[in-house]
Amino acid sequence: MHKRYLMAPGPVSVAPEVLAKMSEPLIHHRSPQFSAILTDVREGLKYLYQTENDVFILASSGTGGMEASVINCLSPGDKAIVVRGGKFGERWEELCTTYGISSVNIDVTWGDAVDPADVESALDANPDAKAVFVQAHETSTGVKHPVQELGAMLRNRPDTILVVDAISAMGVYELRTDEWGLDVVVTGSQKSLSLPPGLAMVSVSDKAWKLVQKSTLPKYYFNFLKERKALGRQTTAYTPAVSLIIGLGEVLKNIRDTGLETLHTHHKRLSEATKTAITALGLELFARTPAEAITVIKAPEGINGQEVVKILREEYGITIAGGQAHAKGKIFRISHIGHLCEWDMLIAIAAVERALKQLGHPVELGRGVAAAEAYFADH
Amino acid sequence: MHKRYLMAPGPVSVAPEVLAKMSEPLIHHRSPQFSAILTDVREGLKYLYQTENDVFILASSGTGGMEASVINCLSPGDKAIVVRGGKFGERWEELCTTYGISSVNIDVTWGDAVDPADVESALDANPDAKAVFVQAHETSTGVKHPVQELGAMLRNRPDTILVVDAISAMGVYELRTDEWGLDVVVTGSQKSLSLPPGLAMVSVSDKAWKLVQKSTLPKYYFNFLKERKALGRQTTAYTPAVSLIIGLGEVLKNIRDTGLETLHTHHKRLSEATKTAITALGLELFARTPAEAITVIKAPEGINGQEVVKILREEYGITIAGGQAHAKGKIFRISHIGHLCEWDMLIAIAAVERALKQLGHPVELGRGVAAAEAYFADH
Repeated sequence: MHKRYLMAPGPVSVAPEVLAKMSEPLIHHRSPQFSAILTDVREGLKYLYQTENDVFILASSGTGGMEASVINCLSPGDKAIVVRGGKFGERWEELCTTYGISSVNIDVTWGDAVDPADVESALDANPDAKAVFVQAHETSTGVKHPVQELGAMLRNRPDTILVVDAISAMGVYELRTDEWGLDVVVTGSQKSLSLPPGLAMVSVSDKAWKLVQKSTLPKYYFNFLKERKALGRQTTAYTPAVSLIIGLGEVLKNIRDTGLETLHTHHKRLSEATKTAITALGLELFARTPAEAITVIKAPEGINGQEVVKILREEYGITIAGGQAHAKGKIFRISHIGHLCEWDMLIAIAAVERALKQLGHPVELGRGVAAAEAYFADH
Repeated sequence: MHKRYLMAPGPVSVAPEVLAKMSEPLIHHRSPQFSAILTDVREGLKYLYQTENDVFILASSGTGGMEASVINCLSPGDKAIVVRGGKFGERWEELCTTYGISSVNIDVTWGDAVDPADVESALDANPDAKAVFVQAHETSTGVKHPVQELGAMLRNRPDTILVVDAISAMGVYELRTDEWGLDVVVTGSQKSLSLPPGLAMVSVSDKAWKLVQKSTLPKYYFNFLKERKALGRQTTAYTPAVSLIIGLGEVLKNIRDTGLETLHTHHKRLSEATKTAITALGLELFARTPAEAITVIKAPEGINGQEVVKILREEYGITIAGGQAHAKGKIFRISHIGHLCEWDMLIAIAAVERALKQLGHPVELGRGVAAAEAYFADH
């Protein structure tokens, strides 16, 4: 008998009580009952985002939220600076290219964070850039980009907004939307919010609204102006994903009850314990400035990372993630987001130990687990 | 103590066993386990649609599926014929206008079906039209448009496709995608499939693929070419709404087990019993060629339809729908889609009888219910 464990960076495991809440009888989306839920959810999102900006809820996966940010803020022929240091940075560039935005790409080695000085140089060379697109956490590499520094930099540039893909970052660690000057911030339901996929959330600052009002890119389903009007009527422009929003209400209530700081500390503990264990096993971390959402591990010399993923899935019922694109085989990724606790991390570490041993890599079974236990005991 | 009843045309009630299935532990979307589910679901959708075409599953509400059809099949400057006989017909026109498609609108009085001869004339006058956009069932008026006739007409016009919004029609009554020549057919999860909102499904014929391959409208999240490639790998282009697709798998399994004809007969019985009851109460139906998805009732002289809706919701816990746009107040709508049975229809009819009486309209309590009971007994 194998229990199943989901420790990939989305979709993530969902708490049984949230699944139960989402499985209550459906309610109509244009009803006072649902409007009240939606209003609560929006307040909860403002707390999560640490913002006074409107946060829109879209029925789509995270990529829909990224697309919405591009097509609502920009116009054909606009120029944008794109931080491209992983699969999701490339997605910003692809979105820009698709919609006729000229993208100035800052190519960052996978595993590295962008150097703010490089963004500053790009801005100096392209003062007409309307936006800087970046990931708070680049999920494909585990890297945390310095969005606080970028926000500070863009405060002095009234005509350029900062658009942040925080899909796998929001709720994981501190991201102060207003204080840091993050103009457009995207997240998704299936990451730290520990819900099934199907919702994207996007906040829009006053600075970004000026661009939204001038944007000439065609848009219909993903339309911030319509969503803002609908928000005023306590509804959404199109039929919302009712059951997911009800789940979101539960999750946000828990977050408000326990406090955002508790949520951040939780992720930090899981992340640091795992990173400590990995180092104790003599393995190397892939990200130089790693985020608390996942631990990305370099596959040791002679070991294919995909084999580690496969053994965990097929033999132990544990889902972790491999590498994407050119990092495929070279890394594997253990997630700290979703409905997970410290014991789950011990399971993941133990499973990695056993898989590596099975693949012929010299591993002392239990060494990583012991390091993680010690970390948890001390923190 | 009031039980809650959802009898609006989406979101609809979901069977408890489907809700339970969707509340099982989440699984990863890039796993052999989910690929197997997705493959089953796609076969189930082909059965539902009666098609050999690919049916794509998008994480969005129905409007996203409508937008996807427009932006994947057409190019700026293209011409399209739009049947505009209600709120959703208007949505086709709005989508066309948004994306630079020149729309030739056939305005149909709300409550009427389009006359195929009018479409034929429009086609003769606009032989360069790339598409005809229509609703199978116009949810705002309860009207069934003659899509079979339109399909036959377009078979002889190799350069014009038929795009059908079947969001509230698919599964309700016979819609033979391939046999009738329906090139692009959109549906949503929250109608006859009796699921929560958050999924759109779109089938694409070979004839439509020729347009898809030539389409120059920018697209990223809603992209049929990418979805087709992903389908070949038993996956989706972007993170799918995993839990909803698992629910869809359950629903489609039931539909295949009991047969599509049984599903159609079920809706027909609920619809005809309700329409019989409404007529027995001396009330008038709004749609001249009504669909089996909903019964749309003209509010009697001196009665505001919104008041009927309000009494049902506030006093009886029953959600039906009012009229939209200029039909607001003039009609109210009882749905036959979702997890409903014949007893539910008696409840809706009884509630309408009591609400109308309360509003001062002369009603003999029980007359409508008796007519529905007699219908059910005989059918």
